[in-house]
Amino acid sequence: MGAERQELAAQRALHAFVSAFVDELARSGVRNACLCPGSRSTPLALLLRKHPDIKVWVHIDERSAGFFGLGMAKVLREPVAIVSTSGTAALNFAPAVVEARYARVPLLVFTADRPPELRDVGANQTIDQTRLFGVHVKASIEVPLPEASKEALRYVRMLACRAVAEARSKPLGAVHLNFPFREPLVPIDSGSSTQDSPREDYRPYVTTSQAPGQLTQDALKGLAAELGETQRGLIVCGPQDDPGFPSAVIDLAEALGFPILCDPLSQVRSSGHACPLAIDTYDTLLGHERTALSLAPSFVLRFGATPTSKTLLSYLQSLQGARQTFVDGGEGWSDPGLRTSSVLQAHPRLLLEGLCRILGQKAEPGGFATRWIQASLVARGALVAALEAEPAPSEPWVLNTLPQALPEGATLFIGNSMPVRDLDAFFFSTPFRLRFLANRGASGIDGVVSSALGAAAALPGPLVLVVGDLSFYHDMNGLLAAKRHGLRATVVLLNNDGGGIFSFLPQAKKAEHFEELFGTPLGLDFCHVASLYGLAYQKPATKRAFMEGLKESLLAPGVSLLEVSSNRDTNLRLHQKLSLAAIMALESCRWDTNLP
Amino acid sequence: MGAERQELAAQRALHAFVSAFVDELARSGVRNACLCPGSRSTPLALLLRKHPDIKVWVHIDERSAGFFGLGMAKVLREPVAIVSTSGTAALNFAPAVVEARYARVPLLVFTADRPPELRDVGANQTIDQTRLFGVHVKASIEVPLPEASKEALRYVRMLACRAVAEARSKPLGAVHLNFPFREPLVPIDSGSSTQDSPREDYRPYVTTSQAPGQLTQDALKGLAAELGETQRGLIVCGPQDDPGFPSAVIDLAEALGFPILCDPLSQVRSSGHACPLAIDTYDTLLGHERTALSLAPSFVLRFGATPTSKTLLSYLQSLQGARQTFVDGGEGWSDPGLRTSSVLQAHPRLLLEGLCRILGQKAEPGGFATRWIQASLVARGALVAALEAEPAPSEPWVLNTLPQALPEGATLFIGNSMPVRDLDAFFFSTPFRLRFLANRGASGIDGVVSSALGAAAALPGPLVLVVGDLSFYHDMNGLLAAKRHGLRATVVLLNNDGGGIFSFLPQAKKAEHFEELFGTPLGLDFCHVASLYGLAYQKPATKRAFMEGLKESLLAPGVSLLEVSSNRDTNLRLHQKLSLAAIMALESCRWDTNLP
Repeated sequence: MGAERQELAAQRALHAFVSAFVDELARSGVRNACLCPGSRSTPLALLLRKHPDIKVWVHIDERSAGFFGLGMAKVLREPVAIVSTSGTAALNFAPAVVEARYARVPLLVFTADRPPELRDVGANQTIDQTRLFGVHVKASIEVPLPEASKEALRYVRMLACRAVAEARSKPLGAVHLNFPFREPLVPIDSGSSTQDSPREDYRPYVTTSQAPGQLTQDALKGLAAELGETQRGLIVCGPQDDPGFPSAVIDLAEALGFPILCDPLSQVRSSGHACPLAIDTYDTLLGHERTALSLAPSFVLRFGATPTSKTLLSYLQSLQGARQTFVDGGEGWSDPGLRTSSVLQAHPRLLLEGLCRILGQKAEPGGFATRWIQASLVARGALVAALEAEPAPSEPWVLNTLPQALPEGATLFIGNSMPVRDLDAFFFSTPFRLRFLANRGASGIDGVVSSALGAAAALPGPLVLVVGDLSFYHDMNGLLAAKRHGLRATVVLLNNDGGGIFSFLPQAKKAEHFEELFGTPLGLDFCHVASLYGLAYQKPATKRAFMEGLKESLLAPGVSLLEVSSNRDTNLRLHQKLSLAAIMALESCRWDTNLP
Repeated sequence: MGAERQELAAQRALHAFVSAFVDELARSGVRNACLCPGSRSTPLALLLRKHPDIKVWVHIDERSAGFFGLGMAKVLREPVAIVSTSGTAALNFAPAVVEARYARVPLLVFTADRPPELRDVGANQTIDQTRLFGVHVKASIEVPLPEASKEALRYVRMLACRAVAEARSKPLGAVHLNFPFREPLVPIDSGSSTQDSPREDYRPYVTTSQAPGQLTQDALKGLAAELGETQRGLIVCGPQDDPGFPSAVIDLAEALGFPILCDPLSQVRSSGHACPLAIDTYDTLLGHERTALSLAPSFVLRFGATPTSKTLLSYLQSLQGARQTFVDGGEGWSDPGLRTSSVLQAHPRLLLEGLCRILGQKAEPGGFATRWIQASLVARGALVAALEAEPAPSEPWVLNTLPQALPEGATLFIGNSMPVRDLDAFFFSTPFRLRFLANRGASGIDGVVSSALGAAAALPGPLVLVVGDLSFYHDMNGLLAAKRHGLRATVVLLNNDGGGIFSFLPQAKKAEHFEELFGTPLGLDFCHVASLYGLAYQKPATKRAFMEGLKESLLAPGVSLLEVSSNRDTNLRLHQKLSLAAIMALESCRWDTNLP
């Protein structure tokens, strides 16, 4: 064969092989791929782009691309592909890949690579990409060099199905496929191959289905009996994203008369099912020793990932003699306080529904639950009054008020560090349905803008991101996607010019060089960022202006940036003031701790 | 012991342990640490900051911090520490760590971590950090929990010395230390400990020294004899950073009368030692088939990393019957073309000096070398004339002219993708001493701004960065360091609004969706970036304005941004025009290929 014919044959084999793979991805339900420009990844980029059922999202910065894909996958609850060329480009996916692992988000990571003979011999843009993401992916597969034989095409179709199935199986996470490609890198279509054997009915080559874990009826009855006899039972819900979970857990709480301490990310505070048993002030209540003592449970039934509130976690850790049971729905062991004595490995919603069927109708809340409800009302009243007394918009005020101002069905993406903690402490349950998202796997401040925009791209309804200035700065590159992909979102930037959370830590009192090492003011005027990326920009000075700006942004096309000026010292003092107001109100209550 | 006393003892142990480590780093010569804010890393941050011999550089974005440290270490040729808190923060170092591996740059990567009992149990900001950077670090060490015993302090002092020694030993690269810390995280100084045993003379606990590899006198004589008999000998110098190398290789070339094909990053084009044998136009010459044939060597002696020029690499690969010898100075196997038949594992400069001692005085360049020199003059003349004929500043013109306009001793940091290739093709040798730096380990477009600013921070003289718009955008966050650390530099931004290099690849002709997948225009107005980061900004439209802007920027404080508008299509056509001009000139030459 002449060199030219050999080359053509190779380009046809490349087309057949990569097309079969992409086709199988689409059959398996993959609908989105985030691509970053590069030469080595050309076959994947071109053939993903050409597939009618797959939408490609081109990004320049792979770090942002990775998080954008993560945000989409979070909303879709389906794997999204992220694709890079060879070299350090691929490494820029690492933060998103690790977040995907710990937040249980399905991702497909495709990295293009040099063929084996060009590795470790000084070839350009070549690094060792074998197991590039270490233990942080569920599988790391070295794809063979493209071939157009029957067996090779069969293999690559299976591989696509398997990668999707692995990413989708619990615990959800990322699957890495490393694709070696030789030059020439432009695939050539030679029409349908007799070697290729896709299923004719357009189903995937291999279909997979998962049986969710259910306790036996006997085990359920035993548990129901135990719960039914419990006087001081408490349900704790951490972050989770099963849309059917909130109503199921509320049903159980009502059947048992148990209070539910619900993290905003459990979706229970905003499920559309108002329930007085849903307690949203525990971060405040449990910070008051006498109240905390009077509200101590004898049994804790815990769902979801680790809750955001450190106060709640310390409280769970401090409980003497309470039996603590954790329902692990395949998300993995979560017990940083080491107080869990029983782990139920079962599908949470199915468990809840099974228990409700056995327990039957609603129970009247007993003294214990009533005390939780009353204490919560007292704390909430005090906090709301104190927040309303402040003339200017503050960080806690934004997290208190903003969710209430969102339209039904809206999504709030919440930044890590202070915003998520303030949301937990100051956002109170709403009768409206809202969805809360955050990167709580590794809780990094990186990639938040891109994750939120990726979520916005996948959502039908409006999305608001609330983010601090360090986190916003960290992923400003993510804003390029706004114009590029015609996205709509509102970014509320809480700008306290630095690392606000550190003011709350012991470092603030004891450490020299605090401002240099922890305060780290950026000193940036973010109006220039708005100009750079074509964002509508407002910096409201009053609460009213903030609310108007928010409303406007929700109606506007594109991405709006709403900056709220804050100050780290003032913010610390306001938190202390709010806490004090709640404590004063709780101090005046007399709980009869002898009542059950 | 009461809880409070226990806590105090732990804080004192923390202080003793981390101080001993930091002290030993300083004794081992570490002078710089890049810190990113975080809580878990508090002990390292505070004690590095307190050490009088270590300067800390605080950054917010760990990715930029990693590359900033890399840039410093490149210039200093000494390990720089980069320090992060736990979680995805640490992962953001990955691109710089991998670049450090392949570019052979010494780095110390310190990541703070949760203690073992808080890992994989759902604790916040906790990921598996064991061997976080996989095969890409030279060593990955899990540091024990801080203790103040004699043996623990002895161990941690040894560990610091060893980490520095490992990073410094060939091939240079990154060493990762993972530090588990328990709360409380603020160390307390209890004065000097009787348990600690640093050396009294302020030398490191363990001193290390490396014996560079030297060939035996017999082997040197054999090689010298072989070289002396070679009629058509060629020296090829890839990127390298030993300041003594250029004059040594020029001495050998003169002793043998061999031409040197020298990559700009070999520093041979700008070593201050003018030498007609230093050929800088090979990228053009070897693109012309007849010239390339007439210049074919019988022996190639290669130094340094893989050269930038793909034309040169293909040429070396195409040579029939030429013996190719590669000198590996401990940097590792470099032979992507698979044509090397002999590898000399020896210190390059010592090898050169040894050969020169044996070979003695200068040889007159023979017919072969003369032909190279003449052809190079012809090509250079044609290229310069064609460049000068263009009225507006272009990408090749900038790379041709800019280095000549820099003051003696200045440093040019060159971006990957097009800028480094244009530098290779269009920058011709200068009698002045200039230093060229680039990230040619993995040749990524990421982290270039931070690497350049890190280099600027470590350099006494001026630094100019030349970078394309995609690469500039990728690491815009790196610009925060400019104001924060009062740096001086000039950034020349070659803005062709997208991925200029792809226009030169087969994808440009054959691929549908070219502009979407490869062209990827950013559509950003970078004047806003200048406003955001307080950079002096100019966008010169004429060559004269560019030169004036450059001169101004070299005298100005702070960082200046000099944007050159380019256009991808025009740039492609200009390259074709330049190539044609050189080919026409070479066509008119008649080389007698029978002459030796």
